Amino acid sequence: MRLEEQAAVQIVAAGRRLDALGWVPATAGNFSVRLDARRLAVTVSGRHKGFLTTDDVMVVDLDGVAEDPAKRSSAETLLHCGIYRRFPEAGAVLHGHSIANTVLSRVAGGSVTLAGYELLKVFPGLPTHEASVDLPVVPNDQDIARMQRGLDALWDGMGAIPPGYLIQGHGSYVWAPDMPMALARMEGLEFMLRCVLEERSLR
Amino acid sequence: MRLEEQAAVQIVAAGRRLDALGWVPATAGNFSVRLDARRLAVTVSGRHKGFLTTDDVMVVDLDGVAEDPAKRSSAETLLHCGIYRRFPEAGAVLHGHSIANTVLSRVAGGSVTLAGYELLKVFPGLPTHEASVDLPVVPNDQDIARMQRGLDALWDGMGAIPPGYLIQGHGSYVWAPDMPMALARMEGLEFMLRCVLEERSLR
Amino acid sequence: MRLEEQAAVQIVAAGRRLDALGWVPATAGNFSVRLDARRLAVTVSGRHKGFLTTDDVMVVDLDGVAEDPAKRSSAETLLHCGIYRRFPEAGAVLHGHSIANTVLSRVAGGSVTLAGYELLKVFPGLPTHEASVDLPVVPNDQDIARMQRGLDALWDGMGAIPPGYLIQGHGSYVWAPDMPMALARMEGLEFMLRCVLEERSLR
Amino acid sequence: MRLEEQAAVQIVAAGRRLDALGWVPATAGNFSVRLDARRLAVTVSGRHKGFLTTDDVMVVDLDGVAEDPAKRSSAETLLHCGIYRRFPEAGAVLHGHSIANTVLSRVAGGSVTLAGYELLKVFPGLPTHEASVDLPVVPNDQDIARMQRGLDALWDGMGAIPPGYLIQGHGSYVWAPDMPMALARMEGLEFMLRCVLEERSLR
Repeated sequence: MRLEEQAAVQIVAAGRRLDALGWVPATAGNFSVRLDARRLAVTVSGRHKGFLTTDDVMVVDLDGVAEDPAKRSSAETLLHCGIYRRFPEAGAVLHGHSIANTVLSRVAGGSVTLAGYELLKVFPGLPTHEASVDLPVVPNDQDIARMQRGLDALWDGMGAIPPGYLIQGHGSYVWAPDMPMALARMEGLEFMLRCVLEERSLR
Repeated sequence: MRLEEQAAVQIVAAGRRLDALGWVPATAGNFSVRLDARRLAVTVSGRHKGFLTTDDVMVVDLDGVAEDPAKRSSAETLLHCGIYRRFPEAGAVLHGHSIANTVLSRVAGGSVTLAGYELLKVFPGLPTHEASVDLPVVPNDQDIARMQRGLDALWDGMGAIPPGYLIQGHGSYVWAPDMPMALARMEGLEFMLRCVLEERSLR
Repeated sequence: MRLEEQAAVQIVAAGRRLDALGWVPATAGNFSVRLDARRLAVTVSGRHKGFLTTDDVMVVDLDGVAEDPAKRSSAETLLHCGIYRRFPEAGAVLHGHSIANTVLSRVAGGSVTLAGYELLKVFPGLPTHEASVDLPVVPNDQDIARMQRGLDALWDGMGAIPPGYLIQGHGSYVWAPDMPMALARMEGLEFMLRCVLEERSLR
Repeated sequence: MRLEEQAAVQIVAAGRRLDALGWVPATAGNFSVRLDARRLAVTVSGRHKGFLTTDDVMVVDLDGVAEDPAKRSSAETLLHCGIYRRFPEAGAVLHGHSIANTVLSRVAGGSVTLAGYELLKVFPGLPTHEASVDLPVVPNDQDIARMQRGLDALWDGMGAIPPGYLIQGHGSYVWAPDMPMALARMEGLEFMLRCVLEERSLR
């Protein structure tokens, strides 16, 4: 199978999985896989991610320009490009909306602190659960290029950058070296966010 | 496939999906698709919507009169008719009961405000998450014709009318140009309602 | 198919469905179908109800005595018998443990009031959502015969008896004329109980 | 089928089931089956437990030493060994992370008390729901041998030892004579933990 087809198959399967987990309601969510130094495979705009076919995956370059000008990629393609451009280790990017990430992104302020969870080990460079991660929460913006510039400025000021962030009222982004690892990282992140949310509703 | 059969297949598939999502408990819920200017396909009365067959879909006119007098359509058929009569863009209507829409409809007063969610884009004419939607909540009534008259009076007094509403203790109605879009809109709406509900249980 | 086999197939299918809904954890739950004036088909003791085969269904009389003395029926068979003996309209009985029915049974006192839900129509003789149902909650007891005597005494003192009850920390019982209706009634009841529970966690 | 293969098939099936229940997010969880007096089959390190194949199961001795030195078993293999060494009746061990067990392990202090649930009968030697179980909660530790020594010290000081424990922020361990019983016990335990959690969010 060609690289593009392999990527498309992975993206379709990721959509099925995230739909089963309830994290791509309506037409929310978008996914990508890096193909080579200059190109990525990414979901087209507007489809339900639980019912993708490989025809719903297209190729863009790192500036988000489509190889096939007849196709339109996800509105947030530039956020995928921003990740691949900055993080050479990023091989796959997932974006989804869960109840937990949406609610927390609206009430958390500038970051969500994850501390004391064994599942923190899904993040790179954290050999122990005693570490803690401050997951950035950035404001939502319909101007995606401007939102990416804001993310770059934020990342410039950070030391260790966790491989994920939340957008207010607008879901999470997670990346990893490959798609299976990105899916595992998203599951781990969402699990911890759900724990944080449920801890906040205890009396 | 004839138009009626296509509509029946879409309605059966919608039932499977909404059952998997938990939004058609017992024999709750009903669905319809507009066939032409004067007729719609709608679920018959009393079946579990997760286990429909195409025989459980029948044709009525815009006054709710059955083509086949031997069949009885959903008790709330007139609410479907009320939507198709007023909104020419409506091509499919979904009604379901979720925990979130039921609980919120009982505690919310006359409307539920949805604001700041990226998923607000599932509603037409809202290009940005900065918009806000006041989803009407109407009292329940076993006299469906009277409930529809109340809805018409409510809509007469509104400016932009969102393509959905809640009935107290009795689920949500959502419509869209076609069935895939109606399903996406219901998923988006239910997602936001669940967020509202969980935000209300935080401390 | 013989009557016993039909009943066994219905019981196996009910187990699959209730397992998918999360209401038969571990080996909890038991189900039965009335065969004739003197006999019922009921699940054997100790199996996981999501993985039943028709061999896990056996026949007992209305006193709970097994036709095949080599088989042992569910520990709570006498509760099924108690329903069939008293309510001639009962054709199928379902018992399951949900989070909502377990939590509410522990905090509710002697009954749970269900009021204002459209789904109240799953109960017989309630033509409108304006009715209200007081679902009895009885104490748990490892002496099942004694628990049934307590239920009979409770029912003797009631006017309209709803087709269901909760046992403290020990799930719900629901009955209906046939298995599809019993499943629908259980879904409706569990839906309303979940609503009651979530309403109690709002602020 | 050889014993090792039977065990591997059971472990793969357990992973599918626990993934469907949401208790093995990311690469969390690990499972084992006792093969004979000196050996167990256990999951290899780092795989997603919902997508195991029988090749992802390996054999170790009761000190955790692999038969095939080319394979690396789950990081927490010594906790499995610690259970099989101490409890001759243990034939299968399951470890998973649920939202309920993670949240409760973080807020509960040294134990979680389970009382009044009919499902307490999944624990051995408890003939009645009137019993109560104090489920130990131990601190998390990346030094697994040290964590096991802590568990042994804890168990030395206990009378009746329940067949399970929680690790802070790091899931539950459950064991039973065989895999079907271990799965039932985990379902029963998780059900009760979820009830405890939801009771704590009521007002």
